[in-house]
Order: sequence, then C-alpha cells, then structure tokens
Amino acid sequence: MLARLQALGLPVPDGFALSFETVNNLAQGGSLPPLPELHAGKPLIVRNSPGQRSWGGSPGGKFLGVNPFEPDALIDLMGEAPALEVCLRLVSGYSKEVFGFDPVGPDAGADPATLRDDVAAALAEFETSIGQSFPPDLHSQIEGLARAKATMWYSVSTRVLREAKGAPADAGLGLIVQEMPLGQGETVTGEVQFVDSGDGRPGVFGVARPLMDRKTGREPDQSGNDLENVSAEALEQLRHAADVIGRDTGDAMRVSFVLNGDDVSIVDAVPVRRNARADVRISVDLARAGRISREHAILRIDPLSLGEHLHQQIAPDFQRDLFGTGFAASPGAATGRIVFRAEDAQSAAARDEATILVRSETGPEDIRGMHSAQGVLTIHGGNSSHAAVIARGIGLPCVVGASGLRISFEDRTLTAPGGRVLREGDWITIDGTSGEVLVGSANMIPPEIGGPLHDLLNWADEVRALEVRANADTPADARTAREFRADGIGLCRTEHMFFEDDRIGVMRRMILAEDDNRRQDLLDRLLPMQREDFVQMLEIMRGLPVTIRLLDPPLHEFMPTGPDDVAEFAAAVNMPVERLKARLRELSEVNPMLGMRGVRLGVVMPSIYEMQARAIFEALIEVNRTPGKRAVPEIMLPLVTANREAELIRARIDAVAQAVQRESGMSFEYGVGIMVETPRAALRAGDLAETSTFLSFGTNDLTQMTYGLSRDDAGRFMREYVSLGVFREDPFRTLDIEGVGELLLTAARRGRERNPAIVLGLCGEHGGDPSSIRFCQVAGFDYVSCSPYRVPVARLAAAQAALLSRDAGRSHESPDA
Amino acid sequence: MLARLQALGLPVPDGFALSFETVNNLAQGGSLPPLPELHAGKPLIVRNSPGQRSWGGSPGGKFLGVNPFEPDALIDLMGEAPALEVCLRLVSGYSKEVFGFDPVGPDAGADPATLRDDVAAALAEFETSIGQSFPPDLHSQIEGLARAKATMWYSVSTRVLREAKGAPADAGLGLIVQEMPLGQGETVTGEVQFVDSGDGRPGVFGVARPLMDRKTGREPDQSGNDLENVSAEALEQLRHAADVIGRDTGDAMRVSFVLNGDDVSIVDAVPVRRNARADVRISVDLARAGRISREHAILRIDPLSLGEHLHQQIAPDFQRDLFGTGFAASPGAATGRIVFRAEDAQSAAARDEATILVRSETGPEDIRGMHSAQGVLTIHGGNSSHAAVIARGIGLPCVVGASGLRISFEDRTLTAPGGRVLREGDWITIDGTSGEVLVGSANMIPPEIGGPLHDLLNWADEVRALEVRANADTPADARTAREFRADGIGLCRTEHMFFEDDRIGVMRRMILAEDDNRRQDLLDRLLPMQREDFVQMLEIMRGLPVTIRLLDPPLHEFMPTGPDDVAEFAAAVNMPVERLKARLRELSEVNPMLGMRGVRLGVVMPSIYEMQARAIFEALIEVNRTPGKRAVPEIMLPLVTANREAELIRARIDAVAQAVQRESGMSFEYGVGIMVETPRAALRAGDLAETSTFLSFGTNDLTQMTYGLSRDDAGRFMREYVSLGVFREDPFRTLDIEGVGELLLTAARRGRERNPAIVLGLCGEHGGDPSSIRFCQVAGFDYVSCSPYRVPVARLAAAQAALLSRDAGRSHESPDA
Repeated sequence: MLARLQALGLPVPDGFALSFETVNNLAQGGSLPPLPELHAGKPLIVRNSPGQRSWGGSPGGKFLGVNPFEPDALIDLMGEAPALEVCLRLVSGYSKEVFGFDPVGPDAGADPATLRDDVAAALAEFETSIGQSFPPDLHSQIEGLARAKATMWYSVSTRVLREAKGAPADAGLGLIVQEMPLGQGETVTGEVQFVDSGDGRPGVFGVARPLMDRKTGREPDQSGNDLENVSAEALEQLRHAADVIGRDTGDAMRVSFVLNGDDVSIVDAVPVRRNARADVRISVDLARAGRISREHAILRIDPLSLGEHLHQQIAPDFQRDLFGTGFAASPGAATGRIVFRAEDAQSAAARDEATILVRSETGPEDIRGMHSAQGVLTIHGGNSSHAAVIARGIGLPCVVGASGLRISFEDRTLTAPGGRVLREGDWITIDGTSGEVLVGSANMIPPEIGGPLHDLLNWADEVRALEVRANADTPADARTAREFRADGIGLCRTEHMFFEDDRIGVMRRMILAEDDNRRQDLLDRLLPMQREDFVQMLEIMRGLPVTIRLLDPPLHEFMPTGPDDVAEFAAAVNMPVERLKARLRELSEVNPMLGMRGVRLGVVMPSIYEMQARAIFEALIEVNRTPGKRAVPEIMLPLVTANREAELIRARIDAVAQAVQRESGMSFEYGVGIMVETPRAALRAGDLAETSTFLSFGTNDLTQMTYGLSRDDAGRFMREYVSLGVFREDPFRTLDIEGVGELLLTAARRGRERNPAIVLGLCGEHGGDPSSIRFCQVAGFDYVSCSPYRVPVARLAAAQAALLSRDAGRSHESPDA
Repeated sequence: MLARLQALGLPVPDGFALSFETVNNLAQGGSLPPLPELHAGKPLIVRNSPGQRSWGGSPGGKFLGVNPFEPDALIDLMGEAPALEVCLRLVSGYSKEVFGFDPVGPDAGADPATLRDDVAAALAEFETSIGQSFPPDLHSQIEGLARAKATMWYSVSTRVLREAKGAPADAGLGLIVQEMPLGQGETVTGEVQFVDSGDGRPGVFGVARPLMDRKTGREPDQSGNDLENVSAEALEQLRHAADVIGRDTGDAMRVSFVLNGDDVSIVDAVPVRRNARADVRISVDLARAGRISREHAILRIDPLSLGEHLHQQIAPDFQRDLFGTGFAASPGAATGRIVFRAEDAQSAAARDEATILVRSETGPEDIRGMHSAQGVLTIHGGNSSHAAVIARGIGLPCVVGASGLRISFEDRTLTAPGGRVLREGDWITIDGTSGEVLVGSANMIPPEIGGPLHDLLNWADEVRALEVRANADTPADARTAREFRADGIGLCRTEHMFFEDDRIGVMRRMILAEDDNRRQDLLDRLLPMQREDFVQMLEIMRGLPVTIRLLDPPLHEFMPTGPDDVAEFAAAVNMPVERLKARLRELSEVNPMLGMRGVRLGVVMPSIYEMQARAIFEALIEVNRTPGKRAVPEIMLPLVTANREAELIRARIDAVAQAVQRESGMSFEYGVGIMVETPRAALRAGDLAETSTFLSFGTNDLTQMTYGLSRDDAGRFMREYVSLGVFREDPFRTLDIEGVGELLLTAARRGRERNPAIVLGLCGEHGGDPSSIRFCQVAGFDYVSCSPYRVPVARLAAAQAALLSRDAGRSHESPDA
C-alpha cells in the first residue's frame, strides 16, 4: 500500500516491509536480516500490515529507531520537549509490547527538565526490571519488537480468536516500518474518512490529536469524531488524497495522516469500516460515480448482509442483557411479552399487544399463533425445524434450539441455565440474526429496502441467469414475493391451507371417513375453499409461474394431539374418545418423515389429489375469465421415488383437467412436474424427466435422506458436529456439495439427457443461500426458490454467481460442455 | 417332446403339433391350415403342450378324428363296444369343450345296442341344441376344439390366473394331436412315476384305468395310486421308458402311457411334480447317479424353497380355518395359545406352554418375550419391521402387518374383520411361509436339514465365491450360525445385549447420568457384562471373522415407555416421575430413524463406544489366552455420513486397543470398518475406504433412506404399491437394483479404487435374498451376511450366482473389467 500511495504522487514517508517469512522466522527464534537504510536519525514507527489488523495483531504503531540514551540529534530535529516525549514513548511502547510492563510512570512531566529525568528514570527502571540495558539501535529494537509481535501472533489464543473472525489457519503476520514525518512545530496524527460508516452517506468523519497529547494521542481511535486540530486547508488536502486513493482502489478509504503545521503526510489508507447498509450505499454511489463498474458493485456486497436491510434490527445503543442463545433461524429482531401458547399470541394480537411465542418446538397447530407473534423462540430444533422454516417463510424473527433454556408450562416460566427466571408476560427481545435472547424490550432500527439497494438489485437482475422464485403458501406470501420482485412461486405448500379454522374440522373428518362416499362429500366441501386460495394466488402472480405442490404431510399431522383437543374433536364428531384415540394410533407413524406422505397419499387415496387438481383448474378458469396476463399453474408431486407413482397421478390430473375444460368450455395449459427429494428420485431422474414439465429439487428432504438425518432431530448435536469439524457446515443451511450436490448433478444430467426441454429448479431452504445458489448456477439449473424475504438475497447471489461463472469461462447454456 | 421320445427309440404313436401362432390365429377367428396325414381311421387325441398344463389350459386329452355318424371302420379296428364308446367320448368331449354342455346322458349304456342308441341320441341332441350337425371330419373337429381351447386360453380370467401362477404375460398355447394306439382287446391308459412326489425317495406311483371305465378312465389323475391294471411286464417296460427319458432330460419323469394288452405305448412324459423336500432329494440322487452334474443339481433348486427344510410346516391334512392374513415375515409355522404381552409369553414358557405372541408391533422390550413364544403375530409393520427382523434372526415363525385384525388389550381379544373373536388363551396357528393366521392347533412336519440337503450345500460351498456370514447377536445365534456353516458373523448388533434383565436398569441410569463421572461409573458396571457376551461370541466363532457393530439405536429406545414402567423406574432411581418424564421428552425424537443414533452417539458421547471397544479387546485377550484358533474381531461403525466421524472414533478405538495391549502385555489384531447405510456414505465411499478394513452395506437403512421410506411405516401401503406395480417388489425384501443398487455399485467402485484391499460385504436383510445375492456376486462383493436361518439359502444362492456369473463370462476377481 505504501508503494502504491507513493506511486499516486501522494506525500508518503519512506518505509519498508518485513515479510511473513521474516516475521515467522523471528517467532521461531531466528534473527533479523540487514535492514534497508532510511534517513538516519528520524524516528520510525512499526505497525502490522493493513490486512491483519482486524485479526488480532496488537494494534497501532510503536516508535523506534531513536537512541533514548543520546536524544541530541532528535532534539535538533524537532525541539527538546517533543524529542524527549518521543524517547519516552519509545521506551514505554517497547517495554509494554516486549515485556508487558511500563517503566514510564503515570506522572511523567511535560517540561524538558522533567522529561529528561523521566527518560533517565525509565531507562534505569527498564534495566533493573529486565536485567539488561535498553536496546539503543534500530536493528535490535526492531528485532525485539517484531519478535514479540510475532510470538503473540502465533500464540494459541490469538490464533483461535483470529480464526473465529474468519482468518485462514495459515494467516501470516507482516510488519511495516515507516518514517515519522516529524519536524519543528506541533505534530498532529489522525485518521479521516469522507463517508459515514453507519449509513454510507457523504460527510467528514475522523479524529486527530497532537502528538504531545499523551492521553489520547498514542492511538487515534475510530469511534470519536474530532477534527478540530486539522485546518481547513489540510482537510482539503486530505479529501484530495482520499479521493485519489479511492479512485485507485475503487473504494471509500479511511486515511491515516501526520500533520506538521500545514505539511500533510499520508502514512496509510484502509477501506472504510462500514455496516451492511453503508456498504450498499457506498458501492452504489461508487458505481454511479463511475469509480467502479456496476458488476463490481454487485460482487462486493455479501448477499447475506442484505438481511440487515430487510428486517428490523436492535438499535446499537440497547444494553444487551443476555438470557440465552440458540440458532439464528430467521433474521431480524423482535421484542414482545413472553407467551407459551399459540392461542395466547393470537389473543394478545387481538389486543394489539406484541408477543414472543416461546415453545419447546412448533407444529402445524402453532402456525396461526406464529403469524400473530412478533417473533418465535424454541428450545428444540435446528435451522430447518418447523419453526425456522415457517418463520423464514413469513419473515418472522426466530431463534430456535435454545437448548440451555427450560420451559415450565405449569409455572409459565422460562429458566436460563444459571437459574434466572422469566415469567409469562415479561418483556423479552430475540435477535434472529445473532441467535441471542435478551431480557427487556429493545428499540429497533426499521428496515430499509428502497434507495441504493433497489438500484443494486435492479443491476443484479440485469446480469443474473437464474430465475429467483419464492416459496409462498398464502396470498400474503405471494404479495410479499411480488413486492420483492420474485420471478414466480417455486413452491406453494397446499397443506397450510387446511389448518385454517373453518377447514381443519372438515379435513379431519375427511381423514377419518370410513367409506369413499363420505370422504368424497367432505372433499367436495373443501374444494371451494381450496379453489379460493388458488384464485387469489394465481391472480396475484398473473403471468408468472405458480408451482403448487399437492398435499405432502402425513395425515396424522392434521389431527388433534393434546388430550383436550382430542376430547373436543371426539365430541364434535360424535365419536367415543377411545375409538378416536384408536384411530389416531392407527394413523400415527414411527418415522413420519419416511412414512405415508407425499405422492404415496395420492396413490393410495387418489380423491384428495383429484380435489386439489380440480381446485387448481377451476381457479385457473376463474382468473383467466377476467382480462390480464394468463395464470400459469404448475402442479408438483412430492416425495416421488418411482416413475410409476408419477404416471398414476398424472393420468388422474389429466382426466380432471379434461373434465374441467369440458364443463367450462374453456381450454387452458398447465404443467406437471416432480419434486425430487428422495435419493432414488435423483438417481432415476432420467425416467422422471421424460414426461415431466419440470424437476424441482427439494433439498431439505433430500439432505435429510442423504444424511439419514432429520432436521427436527439434528438440533441436539449439529452445533457440536460443526464445531468438531465433522460437518464443515450445517448441511440444512448450506448445500452439501460433496454428497447431496452429487445427487443433484447426476439428476440434472440424466434429466436433461432424456428431456432437453426440462426445467430444473431448487426449492429447498438452500434456494436462499448464496453458496448453494452458486452451485445451482454451475449445475445449469433454471431457477431457485426461497422464502419471500430471501428473494433479494437470492437475486444478488444469483447475479454474483452469473458473473463468477462467466469469469470462470462457463456459461449457463452449456453446463455439461 | 413327442419327437424326442421317438428319437429315444420308445414306442410313441405318431402325432403333430399346432404352434402358438396357429392356435392364436384360431382364437382371432382365423381358420386351420391343412393338417399332416396320419394313419387314416385311427382315433386321435388332442391336448395342450406339456409346458402349459399348469397354467390353466383345460386339462387332459379329447378324442377326435372319428366320424361318429359312420363308426364301422373303427368297429373293425377295435370291436363294437369300444368303438362306440370312443364315438360317445368324442361327442361328449367336443360338446363340453366347445359349447359347454354334454349331450351324452348319464345313463349311457355299456352293450353295443344301447351304445348305438346313445350315439344316435347324442348326435341328435347336439343338432337340436346347437342348430347344426356334429362335425364329422378331423379338420372341422380339430378347428372347433382348438378354437375353443384358444379362446379360453386368451380370456381375461384365465390369463390373470395364469399370470398369478408365474406365467409370462405373453405365454402362448400350443396343442398336440396324437394317434391313440387302440386295437382289439382291452385298452388301459395311465401315468406312472418312479419317485415319491412327497419326499423324492424311489418307489412306484401312478394310476391306470381301462378305457371303458367311464367313471375314472377319462382323465387319469395324479392324486391316487392304483396300478393294478398294469402287468409286471408292462411296468418293467414303463420303468425302462421312464429311465431312458430321465437320462435324456436329466430329471425324474412322469410317463403317460396306453396299454393294449401287453403292448406299451408312451404318449407323453412330464417332470414329476414334487414339493421342495422331494426336489432336493431327486436332484441330489440324479447327480449322485451321474445323470446330471452337481452344478446342474445346484442350479435347479430354488434357494427360497429350502425354508421348507429348515422350519417346521403345517401338516398337509390340517383343515385350515382362516382367521386373517398378513405378511409372511419369517418362514415356518407355529401353534400356541394367544398372549398379548411379552411377559405372558415368558411366564407361559416357564410352565412349558406354547404361545403365540400377538402385538400391535414389537419393540426392543418384547425381545425376551419373542424368545419365549413359538411365534409372533403383529398387526402393524412390514417385512422389515422390528418383529420381522428379530424373528428371522432367531428363526421364529412370524406374520406381521395383519392389518385386518384388531387387538383389544382391555378385553384381551383379537377380532377378525368379520367380527369373529379369539380370546387370550385360545389356540392359534400362524404360517410364516404363507402369512396365514389360522384358528386352532395344527400338527406339524418337523424340519429336515441333513441328508441330501447337506450334500447339496456342500457342493454349493465348493463352487461359490461369496462368503456367507450370519447376522448373530447372541451366543445362541452364533451357535446356530456355526451349525449352518456360516463363514463368520457379518453383523453382531450390540444393543440387544443391553436389554437383559440385569443390564437395562444400569443402561437407563447411564443414559440419564448428568455428569461424566457418574456415566463412567455406570459404564464400568456394563463393561464386564458386555465383555462376557463377546467372550462367548468370539469363542464360538474362533478362526472366523466376527463383525461387531457398536451401539446404534437412539438412546430413548432403551427407556421405559408405558406409564407403569415409567413410574416403576422413577421409583427405582429415586427421581420424581415428572422429572423423569421431562427427561424422556427431551430424549424423544420426531424421526428416530434419522436422529441421534449410530456413530453420532459415538461422537457426542464417546465413553459408550470406548467401553464397547474395551469389552471387545478384553474379550479377545481372554479367548486368545486359551489354545485354539485366534479370534478375529472386526469393529463396525454404524450410520456414518462423513469421514471425520470415522476418524474421530477410530482414533479412540485405537487408543483403547493400545491401552488394553499395554495392560495385558499381549498384542492382538483387529479391523475397523464402516457400515455404509446412508446414501451419503455410499457416495463418499472412496474417502471412507481409505483407512477402513471393510465396508459393509447395511441395505435395510440404505433402502429406507434412498426411498425416504421407513420400514416400520411402509406396511400400510406396501401391498397396494406392489399390486399396483408402483414398486416391482417390496424393496426391503428384494434389493432395488435401479436405485439402491446403483449406490452400492458406485460405493464399491469408489471404495476399491481408493483401497484395493478393502473387504466389501452386505449385511442387510437382502443378504438372504437370492436375487440380491446374485447382484452382490456381479458387484464383486466379498460376502453377504444374513439371519442364521437364512444361511443355507444364501449358500445355495451364492453358488448359483457364481455359476451364472461364470457362465456369463464374468469372474469375481474382476468385477469392473
């Protein structure tokens, strides 16, 4: 960086660098090679190379290159008091860094005589404490200091800390040694930047302190904002320098400087630290100003950081009082009173009261309560548990698997590991971005979706090849998806529609029906309700594909569970409780995930799927009767393992379509495709593709089955597994390329071979994960589908994937070439 | 066959055949082509070609080729009464076959005059009923008869029946037309064979009736045994003929003949019908006599039919009173009194009373009761449910998934679909070979393992390439495995060892232990018990590999479930019931199959696996201290998905081994390998193989995960799926070659590539399935492992697979070439 700044014609003091190897060699006990010659007699400063500062090297620069026993040359250069002050700083800084003690007393003076005494006293104190005299020459000072820095850098604790911050395991330490541009007159050191770290807007932010201001002058810190020691003229020079450097680096830079009177020296420059919102504005402004290309702007934003735009966050000034932690399952923060039952969240919502729903784990019966709460906290479950999936789907902040906490439903309390207790009604705040559970009610920063982010995503849409669809189960979801500019709905789970108040009873009766006529009667009652759902969804999404998955969960998920609910339902259907219980036992399954669900229901009880197909087609007719773009439904069959399952169901769907066209006198088009979510379906994708419109990879279930690992049950050991390095990442969060990924690639290849027109998509949770999206780009998929609130993330990630693929010499059109 | 019999120099009347095409053409309304000329005037007989008789063509021969309006030539040939009898038979047979009515009255006479009247009456009756006169010539008789036979053959009901018996969908019908060797003097027709259909031992069995004996003469049937009409000389000629034909066909033959005085004509020969036991004896005797090769003997026995040797069967004379049906889950029949609780089976066994344990489904807590019962019947579950797997393992007859039956535990009754009720204590018989549940107590035929079967299996061992190991969990299993000449133990499930009375309590306390010291104390108490198990197993199997799988099931499977058991255990461990219940809830899982089990336990709670490793190594030391072949333990890690899991556990096992060697001063060898039972493990088999001694494919779980289908829950729709043709076979019974098979082949190839010395085996239920064994041969595996009682089946199937592979030009050594 120094050489680069000099090349830009900026006033940069001379210096040299010590390489990783040199420093590492010192840490191993080696000695320092001969050093380049600088202007003899000027004090120098040593500091870590720019990249490593945030990774735990000791911060800031230390003086060296002066002989404190013979300060006369320095006194000639800069005057007696400043020169002696530099000597004192040198002795103090070296001693603290190398030996961990400070021989300069707190009462060090300010007048030359006292300062002289202080220097002598410090040197004597050093010799007494260390048993040798202070090193007088640059070479031994630099060797001692660099070795101390290196030893600390390679210590276990520093390494662990560094790696936790994302440094690679083999990160090395480089050092920079640079002249200090000191002379007669007051010297001021400082840092300045011309954009706001908090929001990216233009402004002047920085700190500057006279060298002699011992209290704060040693290390300008970034938190304050005080440039009163910098003249307007110097500030103009600094703005110019920042501008020149910014043009060169293509980024907004924070500049470190030394002022000697009005003499400006630039000693260093690093990219401005910034939060996610500032990051987007800075990048978009740079691109608008022509400093960087739009593609560059797209590539430099971490898609996951967009969560901070899309969800409200805890205000930075809130005093975080940590009660517990869990998995950060759905981003954004929420605050509300604790409730332990879904119905309490609903009644609180009716009174306009904010709640956080706290459950051991959630199930379908909690969904309406989740909609009513501000956030959800569960004790069990992982990133793909029911609570997490639903919460992400509806943009609700959620923390799951807070396994240290204990609920007592009897006492209505929540207890932290140390025994601290919160009661129902107490205020609590959850941070779904960090996984923290905090005591009390926090102020929030609202989301911000327009402005620069809007521009950035438009640019992203221009370059991306992958469609981004949304997983949307309700008209509200669909509206959110449209708002976030999704390219369609990639997964509409129809089962959620049956949990609404007026429907669940009919659904349950239908499930218990003991003869086909009775079942058909009940299905006929569900038909108009289901049709109305589809009318709304198709209407909202006109002109865009809407992929509707037929009923998937095992039927027992619709049945009452608690004793009260069972008794109530038994009374409602006029059935002895014991008989109902027996029926429920018959329906129950040992492993519901691997049971009678998905297309298996369709094969064994075809009337349910026929009703759903009819509801879709009748809705389609109704929407298409009114002017506007046509509705584009795609019917998706879940949990297929054998081609024959799809054949049987497809024949029934086609028959229903013909009947509806005959009855209505209107014709329409629709697609039928397959959700590839078992390993067998992936392997047999060639067969399955032949007569399908699309294959959509359900990577949630596919991951579960490939690993033999239920997302509901993985929570209790996933954290340990990731921390032990058994799994590189939670495979429910980031696609497992080596295992699940191979199945996807195999399926895509076989599908395309047998049916080149097949549309390939991915509709698991991974659809919103940037590295998984990159995989989909490389695999030649046509779309990804994710939670509506993830759509912006996916749009940006898809653009990045397209740019990276293009750079890698690949194109979306020929993934197999 | 006729031409072949003639070529053997046997006295065979002339004839000709009508091909499939000719007959099919007739069924389509076509007409008969010109026929070859035979000796004019002799009556002919038409019958189905040999192969098709058991597939539902109308049985037996019909006379034709005589003009009943002009019988004089025939009267000259064979005398008046016989000739007129032939005419009557012709008219009767033709009418019945073609028009479904019989114009010959039951009072048809025996003297010539009456017979003449009878013929005239029959012809007149024919004309009245049909509206046309009886066809007088061979050509129109054969056309009518053949068309009728063809129409019936191609009718839907016959086809369905035929296919149910195993005929291919496109099976055609051929007909044979043959001269009847009739002349002056009494004609006798019959069939004879020289081995017993029931047990295969030599003897003379057959029936023969004079042609004129109208009651029984029309169709010799196989059930009787009456040869009094055959002279000793004729019998000698027949024995000679059977011998000649048998040498030619390489099989024991049943010969159809016509005797004219002492003139013997052979009209047909078919292989002797036989049951499974006879089949083995006949084949072995033929091979011993040099009529067929040993390899031929091996190839012609259906391995699955050996079940009839290995298990007791219901005596054929038992009147089967069907109460219900389920899946035939473990072969053999059993009879006993109904009990509904495992402990009742145990106490009945203590009183030497036979019981059938009837359960909704079984769990680990029922295992001891299963050992005490004569058989097991469950309402739920499929072929790979807990009950089925355990029952096959211990050779216990078992019917599962008898979903039509209802248990009332309260009333202690079992109710059939029609409402028929059996009570606890009533006698019941289950047939685990057919899946039938029968009322009452049946007599049994004992198993027969020695004799010819012993020889056959020895011959099989000489040719097979695959090792056959046994899945054996207990010393008793291991003894059975040795008895059946298994090549080792391929799967010893250690979890069953913890269910014994004195252990389960300690195990449960260990699971609930809240600190590591307490857990270690309890593991230290389990150690000697586990070691003793292994000492016995290794001792029994000295010199042969014993593959011990470390703890696999989720821990909640060891915990009490019913309220009484929970309360009892809570009292025993001095824990409030509510607190225990809370702990049990924490342990419970939504999908136990996909939860915290297998190597995941080992990673998260390593002390359990360390205890098991120590028990194995200390047992090994103890066995090897005494003289004899060395014990060969192989430690297997279940449910691996990532190589790092195996690395972590292997390091701990090696550390335990070193410790035990140091403590004992003795060195030993052991293998550590991986149970490949998740799709991901199959895909990553290259990595896994690198540092493993073996990979053993656990195809039960691998099938579950590849299909996303739990064996416990598949029962409720598997039958429907197979009958709809969705699955060609139950994939838990016969390996799914297209899906699971591809994963096995991929894994085998990748494993061998990275580690050519790796041993590959299969230890799922499929290890005892012949077609799956054939797959293992082709895939180049080293062994299969199956239930001890399946070992003979697998030995024979492995020999067949080796012979078939050799014939297909492949060899076991180069599966990938």
